Amino acid sequence: MTTVVSDLVDTDHRFGRKGHDLRVRVRELNSDGERGHLLVFGAVTDGCLVRVHSRCLYGEALGSDDCDCGPELEKSLDLIQRAGAGVLIYLEQEGRGAGLIAKARGYRESELSGTDTFTSYEALGYPVDARTYSASARSLVELGLRSVQLLTNNPAKVQALEQAGLTVTVVPLSTRALSDRARDYLEAKRRHRKHWIPTDEVPWAPDDTVPGCAEPDQPTPDLGAETVAPQPASSVLAHAAGRDPGDG
Amino acid sequence: MTTVVSDLVDTDHRFGRKGHDLRVRVRELNSDGERGHLLVFGAVTDGCLVRVHSRCLYGEALGSDDCDCGPELEKSLDLIQRAGAGVLIYLEQEGRGAGLIAKARGYRESELSGTDTFTSYEALGYPVDARTYSASARSLVELGLRSVQLLTNNPAKVQALEQAGLTVTVVPLSTRALSDRARDYLEAKRRHRKHWIPTDEVPWAPDDTVPGCAEPDQPTPDLGAETVAPQPASSVLAHAAGRDPGDG
Repeated sequence: MTTVVSDLVDTDHRFGRKGHDLRVRVRELNSDGERGHLLVFGAVTDGCLVRVHSRCLYGEALGSDDCDCGPELEKSLDLIQRAGAGVLIYLEQEGRGAGLIAKARGYRESELSGTDTFTSYEALGYPVDARTYSASARSLVELGLRSVQLLTNNPAKVQALEQAGLTVTVVPLSTRALSDRARDYLEAKRRHRKHWIPTDEVPWAPDDTVPGCAEPDQPTPDLGAETVAPQPASSVLAHAAGRDPGDG
Repeated sequence: MTTVVSDLVDTDHRFGRKGHDLRVRVRELNSDGERGHLLVFGAVTDGCLVRVHSRCLYGEALGSDDCDCGPELEKSLDLIQRAGAGVLIYLEQEGRGAGLIAKARGYRESELSGTDTFTSYEALGYPVDARTYSASARSLVELGLRSVQLLTNNPAKVQALEQAGLTVTVVPLSTRALSDRARDYLEAKRRHRKHWIPTDEVPWAPDDTVPGCAEPDQPTPDLGAETVAPQPASSVLAHAAGRDPGDG
């Protein structure tokens, strides 16, 4: 494996988190309606961990219990830090691409109607999920990567990266729901968007070994995240498709 | 005191955090280069708690130890939740208004030169602090507020709100520095931007009573945040000005 990404040097700096340091380089992404940043942690090589993450102000910055966005991002960063390298693509895709006002209206509609936020978005005339990941996928190719381990439960992200020519191994993200509403949201994501959400009946086999893309260049931090075994993308997509074939 | 803000009703929804719910309404802000959102928690009235917060991806969503942005936002929300009402103005002012790439370059320059990020911004040709708060201040007046308790250590925010005609009482934010770098950053904010940062020599008198703007409409959550006594804005501004009179 060769190290990729020789540019971005002018943004290379130390990034401290949970008492441990990692180098990071940053690049802006603004293409085909996908706006955000690539954060390249450590010396990434083929097969490195990648998280493509859509912004959620409530779940991340505000610490809301109502969704799993914060825990998903935290776990992704724990795993990247533990591996010593990886890429976070952080996308300005608040409210599944519809923005914060739409998200708030969707929450309200769900409260009034008792439906999930996907159904509420439809009722309010918003696209159920306006997000795309193709420019993000291309940006990974432009970094020099040919294969990645994608930290996700979302088949749409896997498909976008594969369509860009990347070989994708899926590392599912298992998080603890912080509330009943967060649990309902996970279930809605499974039902409406075919996300692969581990359940008691169909858990990913737990495994302490998460193959990173590089040996840690510092003492491995004790980040307290249990890990899960990576899965070939094909099995995840087949699994997701089989769950709810009638849904878009 | 009368309850203000009769509109925004279509965004009114339940917001869960740390196991407790609060109602929130959301309004977009995009005026005079200030872009972001107003989040109106509970039934706000004159004298309610207000936090005007500049986005920091690293400190908030990514949980970096390198600054105090995450802890400042968390504490502000703890206090608003405890009071049962308040306003968060969340501004897209990453990297003191210069953006994430500038912030990364500033961190790198500081690493190489040993200086703080204010000095690094100057060396790189970025404005030391490009942020303004005048549109945010006006938006509070438009909500119907005439007086607020402002959760801040930053005299520039106090001045902006006073210039908009609001009566401001300052509630300083005391946070625990997560790293030596975060401590250095606090010191740099004090030196360069005259922020009022509590120190061992000059602490704000601790006090368990933070006057909220409304009685909590639910059992008061145990949010674990010690609080500090509010201060009249005039004393804070005088204090800040006296600390480093030669600095801009």
